[in-house]
Amino acid sequence: VKIAVLLYDRFTALDGIGPYEVLSRLPDADLSFVAKTPGPVKSDTGFLQILAKSFADLADPDIVVVPGGPGSEAAAADPAILDWLRGAHESSRWTTSVCTGSEVLAAAGLLDGLEATTHWAFPDRLEKHGVKPTNRRVVFQGKVVTAAGVSSGIDMALELAAREVSDEFAQALQLGIEYDPQPPFDTGSPEKAPAALVDLVRGTMRAAAITG
Amino acid sequence: VKIAVLLYDRFTALDGIGPYEVLSRLPDADLSFVAKTPGPVKSDTGFLQILAKSFADLADPDIVVVPGGPGSEAAAADPAILDWLRGAHESSRWTTSVCTGSEVLAAAGLLDGLEATTHWAFPDRLEKHGVKPTNRRVVFQGKVVTAAGVSSGIDMALELAAREVSDEFAQALQLGIEYDPQPPFDTGSPEKAPAALVDLVRGTMRAAAITG
Repeated sequence: VKIAVLLYDRFTALDGIGPYEVLSRLPDADLSFVAKTPGPVKSDTGFLQILAKSFADLADPDIVVVPGGPGSEAAAADPAILDWLRGAHESSRWTTSVCTGSEVLAAAGLLDGLEATTHWAFPDRLEKHGVKPTNRRVVFQGKVVTAAGVSSGIDMALELAAREVSDEFAQALQLGIEYDPQPPFDTGSPEKAPAALVDLVRGTMRAAAITG
Repeated sequence: VKIAVLLYDRFTALDGIGPYEVLSRLPDADLSFVAKTPGPVKSDTGFLQILAKSFADLADPDIVVVPGGPGSEAAAADPAILDWLRGAHESSRWTTSVCTGSEVLAAAGLLDGLEATTHWAFPDRLEKHGVKPTNRRVVFQGKVVTAAGVSSGIDMALELAAREVSDEFAQALQLGIEYDPQPPFDTGSPEKAPAALVDLVRGTMRAAAITG
């Protein structure tokens, strides 16, 4: 199974690495990080660089993963990225996104008429492309799958592994990565966090996405 | 706050990227991936390469993160890695590991007399260094912190953020990465998974760690 994880300047690392950690362990997995320009691609914090192959190296993936991050708005306006994504979607069994990666799918026209999700602080990134965001964590619509903010890609990838192989296989992967979450707090969604904290984080993240 | 994430051949990516995603967002964070040999370092699957700086570039971090993976046994036998780690530990406020990264700490003598944890399938990696593993997900012992398998580094890093800054700050980070886990199954620990699955995954992972 050929898997492509898209990279672009200022992606959020865990958006891509969560699904990578699960999907790279599918039977006969062949996973590539791909970008418009091959070579090192820098994450949103500026502290991480991952080596990417070129789009030409993997034009026909079985599974596509599009991470989000502050750079997703620019990615969603880049014709080279949208062209590759539309082409990859033609051959894919699954076309997926994490966080604001869904705005890149939306910009490519791949979410037309579908339900979708994104990071809770950026619903407008879908709305501006005419897509109405849900607040579900993982949304399956045929072969198009969108996941909510950052860490949700792990949950999405386990569900994908179950559909690609079997429930038992996905359960084995979950056990292998010891995914038995025990966060020290219970503030991981805007429904659970205090309203003042939600406002603070929304403001901080939206400012960071604009200014870099 | 200067943060070093150790890389070595055949590390497990999520072990390092989980803590990176949280700790890189601490106030004034300056995070570096470091390795014995600077340049691209390949993860256990062979599909991911992260660019690393040299040990000399960051000899005195405030926070050290040592990921695990099939390569941890070789890392724990590498004098250059152990020397850097012992030196970094002298200046650190926190010296941490995820998964079998704790065997590198143990080999450096940093776990002597302490409680510690590791991936559930590899307790012997601590025992051979005279350290008795617990099955807790995150273990704080003074400034030494060990976390269980792979995904546990996210939980550890949130707790570290709370101790470094405040509970509210850590809660904001949790909300920012939308860490509201909803795994499709509940098989993330050997206590929760069926015994046959535990045996299967243990055998598979131990074989992979040996043969590559």
